[in-house]
Amino acid sequence: MILYIIIFRKRDFMDYIFSNRVSGLKPSAIREIFKYAADPTVVSLSAGNPAPDAFPAKALEEISARLMRENPTLALQYSITEGYTPLRESLKDYMATKGIGKEGDDLIVTSGAQQVMDLLTKSLVNEGDEVVCEAPSFIGSLNTFRSYGAKLLGVPMDADGMNMEALEETLRTHDKIRFIYTIPTFQNPSGITMSLEKRHRLYELAKEYKVLILEDNPYGELRYKGEDLPTVKSFDTEGLVVYAGSFSKVISPGMRVGWCVAPAPIIQKMTVCKQGSDVHTNIWSQVLCHEFMTKYDFEGHLRFLRELYSKKAEYTLKLLRENLSDKVKFTDIDGGLFIWCTLPEDVDMPAFCLDAVKNKVCVVPGTAFLTDENEVSHDFRINFSTPTDEQLKKGIEILGELTKKL
Amino acid sequence: MILYIIIFRKRDFMDYIFSNRVSGLKPSAIREIFKYAADPTVVSLSAGNPAPDAFPAKALEEISARLMRENPTLALQYSITEGYTPLRESLKDYMATKGIGKEGDDLIVTSGAQQVMDLLTKSLVNEGDEVVCEAPSFIGSLNTFRSYGAKLLGVPMDADGMNMEALEETLRTHDKIRFIYTIPTFQNPSGITMSLEKRHRLYELAKEYKVLILEDNPYGELRYKGEDLPTVKSFDTEGLVVYAGSFSKVISPGMRVGWCVAPAPIIQKMTVCKQGSDVHTNIWSQVLCHEFMTKYDFEGHLRFLRELYSKKAEYTLKLLRENLSDKVKFTDIDGGLFIWCTLPEDVDMPAFCLDAVKNKVCVVPGTAFLTDENEVSHDFRINFSTPTDEQLKKGIEILGELTKKL
Repeated sequence: MILYIIIFRKRDFMDYIFSNRVSGLKPSAIREIFKYAADPTVVSLSAGNPAPDAFPAKALEEISARLMRENPTLALQYSITEGYTPLRESLKDYMATKGIGKEGDDLIVTSGAQQVMDLLTKSLVNEGDEVVCEAPSFIGSLNTFRSYGAKLLGVPMDADGMNMEALEETLRTHDKIRFIYTIPTFQNPSGITMSLEKRHRLYELAKEYKVLILEDNPYGELRYKGEDLPTVKSFDTEGLVVYAGSFSKVISPGMRVGWCVAPAPIIQKMTVCKQGSDVHTNIWSQVLCHEFMTKYDFEGHLRFLRELYSKKAEYTLKLLRENLSDKVKFTDIDGGLFIWCTLPEDVDMPAFCLDAVKNKVCVVPGTAFLTDENEVSHDFRINFSTPTDEQLKKGIEILGELTKKL
Repeated sequence: MILYIIIFRKRDFMDYIFSNRVSGLKPSAIREIFKYAADPTVVSLSAGNPAPDAFPAKALEEISARLMRENPTLALQYSITEGYTPLRESLKDYMATKGIGKEGDDLIVTSGAQQVMDLLTKSLVNEGDEVVCEAPSFIGSLNTFRSYGAKLLGVPMDADGMNMEALEETLRTHDKIRFIYTIPTFQNPSGITMSLEKRHRLYELAKEYKVLILEDNPYGELRYKGEDLPTVKSFDTEGLVVYAGSFSKVISPGMRVGWCVAPAPIIQKMTVCKQGSDVHTNIWSQVLCHEFMTKYDFEGHLRFLRELYSKKAEYTLKLLRENLSDKVKFTDIDGGLFIWCTLPEDVDMPAFCLDAVKNKVCVVPGTAFLTDENEVSHDFRINFSTPTDEQLKKGIEILGELTKKL
């Protein structure tokens, strides 16, 4: 009774009023599933983590030991907001090899590429402004845009990337668009890569409508077959493209190091926002990334990763071909970490995913990646980098059984 | 000529339009001075860095080497947004020893305490809402509040903390106040500690006016003399106080690890915002903080820091007494890293600080810490943790000469 009263008074005293921008926010469906999939008996095809054996652990152990022994103060003292100067320089050189970074551009080191989404949206987007997104797109970015009160405008995806007619129609009919968000290469979640022709068209449309482009490229180095395509940023002679890079998929996500190449005035605003957000990115991890890029075989490590994931991708596609009902379609990917599966129109996808989880295999329902989560989706996302081959086999066999019941 | 045209077209093509919330933001004066003071011939009394010999470098080197050798995947893989579970538990235990954390509270690990300011403001403050701040207060926090469009309401400081009559008047006459920001112990920049009586009064006023309190306590462990005072959070039976803690001054700022204890519904919103900001805090540094707190002599290290800074503080106060003109007043501190100096009413403080820098000693003008930077200030801030004793002597002797010319 006393307990009851205490609880009652506690709840009664104050209900917390949150800002408009966050009142509607829900925790990311992926990260919720992430926790759910922690149940060891569930085969999780729902994460997006690098494979445990993908980390250059030995090299990072060496670098870290040397740093903490020879120059601990560098790792432990305050640093500058823009990022560890040697890393900024090595990143500028690395970007230059991809044609990224023209006169007038600058580079900031961020706490993962996620922080690029955060700092850029904070710098550019007023509540009620619009952001054009691929539909589907990466839920983490969509939620960041939403968290600043942005209205999301979804543009459907074709097999070769954003539908350009729909994009132009959107640009023509809306006047509060601040930027177009795209993951042109091995997109999360669809696995789709935008064609060269569409990359040029996208840039031309942005130029014509004087809208910025936010190009997010975490998977660009993970191509298993086919020719590399130039980034949209590499066309950028007018200062229209903000480029987000990340070490999460090629060195380590736990270190939280990403970067942004953008016109200097934008980088300056993002830097002021970063001062107020986390002052600077963990300096130990910035030093490790710089040393690994410049004193170790970074290129060799990328080749190792491509081989590792290529094998897993081929194996997964084989399992999907062998086990899934012909009624289910899936993307035949050239790189990245994700495969997008599409159920027949007459199938209730959420019910299917729920059924799957009850049968101990976890995938991400396509609705999680839509700009409007109330829209109907017949898709779900499979990740093949995190599970072991045994888990992939078991999980996809279960999915296969379920699809054959459709 | 060609260059001219290029530049002209570049600038002509697009002037970037920024969001209302950041359009007015300027880089933090401290961090600008920070860079300026990088000139090795300038004695910098303007920073707020821990002393280089204040880091438990040997212990952290040991812990880091063990972690990277025995469990690199833990340090390198994605982790959860709320923070590394063992660290959250050890922080909850640590906070409990200070009476912090009641039923209904929760704890999140953040990327420095700066991120607490960011996530809380984002969660609570609509553009045009009001935040009550001590005047003067920590510029990093003030700029974060501003970056979400908050209107800052300054409450003057007495020798024993915020003026409570002015605070009540402010609470009575404003209806959009979301929280009261305070650094009650060894405040940055003033060095002032709020009396026990005023801490109780502050809590009672917050309760009466149903306004939250954000208690920022980075220096609480750095008391050199006198009795510890209870935190405002330790009075919190109604879920009114959000507490920000930090390892920056007691372990290392470069690691960027802080934490927040607050009512669970607030922590939940902050967690969603953190997902969109940096996903999670660098995991290596979270493990190091946990191991150092639980397997090493954290208490002994705090005693070492108190002794180290106590000596420097006493030495600095002695130098100030010996060198400054009697016309200049300064706080006689019991802890923390800062001393607040007040020039006579008839002296132009900004001109004095500029003169000082020209004479190779750098201090922070008091205006930088005001909620309204256009107000007149006769104060400047001295830091004694970063400079060597030799630098303190040289710098304060120069300041002394200048004050005697007044």
